[in-house]
Amino acid sequence: MQYPEPIAKLIDSYLKLPGIGEKTATRLAFFTIDMQEEDVTAFAQSLITAKKDLHYCSICGNITESDPCIICADKQRDQTKVIVVEQPKDVMSLERMREYHGLYHVLHGVLSPMEGKGPEDINITGLVRRLQKNSDLTEVIIATNATPEGEATAMYISRLIKPAHIKVTRLAHGLAVGSDIEYADEMTLFKAIEGRQEI
Amino acid sequence: MQYPEPIAKLIDSYLKLPGIGEKTATRLAFFTIDMQEEDVTAFAQSLITAKKDLHYCSICGNITESDPCIICADKQRDQTKVIVVEQPKDVMSLERMREYHGLYHVLHGVLSPMEGKGPEDINITGLVRRLQKNSDLTEVIIATNATPEGEATAMYISRLIKPAHIKVTRLAHGLAVGSDIEYADEMTLFKAIEGRQEI
Repeated sequence: MQYPEPIAKLIDSYLKLPGIGEKTATRLAFFTIDMQEEDVTAFAQSLITAKKDLHYCSICGNITESDPCIICADKQRDQTKVIVVEQPKDVMSLERMREYHGLYHVLHGVLSPMEGKGPEDINITGLVRRLQKNSDLTEVIIATNATPEGEATAMYISRLIKPAHIKVTRLAHGLAVGSDIEYADEMTLFKAIEGRQEI
Repeated sequence: MQYPEPIAKLIDSYLKLPGIGEKTATRLAFFTIDMQEEDVTAFAQSLITAKKDLHYCSICGNITESDPCIICADKQRDQTKVIVVEQPKDVMSLERMREYHGLYHVLHGVLSPMEGKGPEDINITGLVRRLQKNSDLTEVIIATNATPEGEATAMYISRLIKPAHIKVTRLAHGLAVGSDIEYADEMTLFKAIEGRQEI
C-alpha cells in the first residue's frame, strides 16, 4: 500500500526543496494536512506570488518587485561606490547595517572550477558594463564570502577592473566583534594580525 | 530595508512548518524563486489538493481520500484483528510489510501528562466504540512506539479493554534484525533477554 496520491504528490514537492529528505518531506506533508485550511491556502498563494512578482533587477541583479530595484532607482544614494556580493541575501544583511548608502551588484554565485562555474556563469559582465557606462562609479568594494571560492572571485574581479583605474577594495577580515580569541580559527587570527591597525 | 513583501510572506509561510527556522526559511524562499515556474505551481497545487482531498477515516482515523478508507472498506481483510498505532505513517510502515491483513486504528497521538494530553485528546473512545459495535473483533494489537508515552498509552488501553474479554497484545521488543549487539542500548538488550524464545 502506498500513500494516497494527494499526500504522495505533496511529499514529492517537499522533496524538491534543498536539504529536505524523504523523512522530513513526509513529516512536513502530514503536518500540512493538520494545518488550518486558510494557512495552507496562504502558503500556496505566497509561493505563486513570490515566483510571479519577483524578478532580478536588470541593473544590479538583486531581487525586486519593480525594475530597476528601489536601490538602483534611488538617485539620493551614493553613485560612486558599488558593493559586489554573491547573493541577494547579502544585500539585505548589508542594508540592515544602515551605514552604507552606495549601490550593489549581485553576482548570483562565485567562480568554482570544481563545479564548472566560470566567469560567464556569474553576473560579472553586468558589472563591467555598469563600470563602462557609469563614469561616476569610482570604487568597487568586493564583499564575496571569506571562502576559497569567494577569495578567488574577488581576485578575479580585482584583476579584471583594476586596469581601468577604478579603486578596488575588499571587506576587512579579522575577529568578529564580541568573539573570543580562544575560539577563533587560525586563518582568522592570521588575517587579524596581518590587518592590525595602530591605536 | 526589509525583504520585498512577496519574499517576506513566503519566508513567513515556511517558518510555520515544524523544524524550520529563520535561516532555513530564507534559504527555501530564495530557492523557490529560482525554481521553474511550473514546479512552483505544482507545489502550490499539491498543498491545496492534499489539504482539500484528504480526510481522516471516520472508522479508523487513518488519512484517506474516500470515507471509509480502503482498508476499512475491504471486507476481504481479517475482521478479527485491529492494530492500534499512533500516526497514519505507522499504518503505511506496517502495510509495507505485506504480512498483516487485519484492520487498523489510529490514535493520532499518545497519552502525555507532561503536555497535558489525556485519554479524551486521542482517538481512544473511537476504539472502544468499534469494539462494542463489532463483535468479530477479538484481538487488539497495540503498536504504539517504544517510548515512555507509547508504553503508558499501551498499558492504559490494555486495562480499559481487557475486562471485555478481548485479547490484547503488544508488539515484541528486542534486537532489530541485522543489528549489532555491541550497539544496542541497555533497555533493548534487557527486553531482548526478557522476551527470549526457545529455538
